[in-house]
This record gives sequence, structure tokens and C-alpha cells, in this order.
Amino acid sequence: MPPRLTLRVDFGPRQSIGPGKMRLLEAIDSAGSISGAGRALGMSYRRAWMLIDDLNGCFTEKVVTTALGGKEGGGAKLTPFGQNLLKHYRAIETEAATAAKKHIAFLARSLSEKPPAEAKRTRISK
Amino acid sequence: MPPRLTLRVDFGPRQSIGPGKMRLLEAIDSAGSISGAGRALGMSYRRAWMLIDDLNGCFTEKVVTTALGGKEGGGAKLTPFGQNLLKHYRAIETEAATAAKKHIAFLARSLSEKPPAEAKRTRISK
Repeated sequence: MPPRLTLRVDFGPRQSIGPGKMRLLEAIDSAGSISGAGRALGMSYRRAWMLIDDLNGCFTEKVVTTALGGKEGGGAKLTPFGQNLLKHYRAIETEAATAAKKHIAFLARSLSEKPPAEAKRTRISK
Repeated sequence: MPPRLTLRVDFGPRQSIGPGKMRLLEAIDSAGSISGAGRALGMSYRRAWMLIDDLNGCFTEKVVTTALGGKEGGGAKLTPFGQNLLKHYRAIETEAATAAKKHIAFLARSLSEKPPAEAKRTRISK
């Protein structure tokens, strides 16, 4: 596996974007609903809904629009602003990774080939 | 508050660096011990020790060296490699932020001035 950079942008104490929210937007774009996106990501409907509610309150424009519907809830889709948000986030990732490349390569050369095995250690599970 | 970028580098499934570990390295550098660093960050000794144990197993060189000691445990300090790791991580942050600047500025212009207030919402506490 090549080194992977993930990033989070905090705009304010309750205004942030990061990999979880962006994956959720992509999943909504594919699944066409919040419940379907949650299922695809193994995330509860409540959690998915709260992340979207956060994002919708974060910007002057809505990120996702939803329609009321039947048993499974109505459909959900990204607004043009939501599509843009996702594109900018992915661009930040790509440009940040390019900028950081030589530092990451330096650190990767010093990686241990045998990191401590999970199984040998006592971990408090989350 | 200006937008803030935080990042994490995953080198492999059990080999990663991110803001928590890097803040801990800085705190050890200031406090001169793992217990002191944990206290400064409000982190348990066990948690701090495990993060350092992870980091020490992650690379071919140790990041922190510790000395056995009295009640409070012996001192701890960053190795030259540990200092370097911290410098590279901070450089990755700075260069990534510069590269991402125009995208972040675009998103910052669309920020809501009134994000939803924490108090008005029902949250499951962690």
C-alpha cells in the first residue's frame, strides 16, 4: 500500500469537512438516498443524517437535498454546491499530496518492515 | 478563526502519523517525560505510552527514548529521528496548506455565519 494522506479542514468549532463526510457525500451520490448511503458505509441512518445536517448547516447553500418518502425515506441527492464541495475537497487532497510528496517519501524510507502486530498487544477496543 | 488543515499519513494498516501523535511528541519535548506530556494534554499515561510504543515500532529508528525511573517514571526525550519526524510532519502541514489555499478560500467564502448551535441539538456523547 502506498502512503496515503487524509485531511480535515476546520473552518470553525462546528464547521468542518473531512474524509468521513466526503465519503458519505459520494455514497449518497451513488445510492440516491441517505439510508442507502449509510448501509453502503456500515453507518447508522441516524449518524448519516446528522453528518448531512451538519454539512447543510455549515455553508450558505445546502449540500444535500432530500425528499420525504415511504418506508425507506425519500431520495437524497447532492446539490450543485455539494458536487463542488466534493470536487474542491478531492482537489485539496491531490494538491496537498503532491506538495507533501518529498517529505512523505523521506519518512516512508524509514518505515519499519515489521510494525508491531495487533494481535500481540492488548488494546482497549473502541 | 482562520480555516485550519489537519492531516494524517497512513503508511500501512498499523503505521500512521497524525496530529495527536505529533502533539504528544511536542509535549514530550517540552515536559521531558511521557507522564508529564500526558498530563499537559489531558491524556492518560497508558494512552500516551501506547501512542509512543506505536511510533517506536513504526520506523526503523526509535522516535522517543525513555529512562527507567522513580515514582513518576524516568524521563523521556525525542531522538534525533523523532525531531526529524516532527519537522517533516510540520513541513507537510505547511506545504499542504499552501497548496490547498485557493480551494479552502473558495469554500470559506460559502461558510454559513450561523452554524447550528450545539446546544439546540441532541447529540450522543462519545
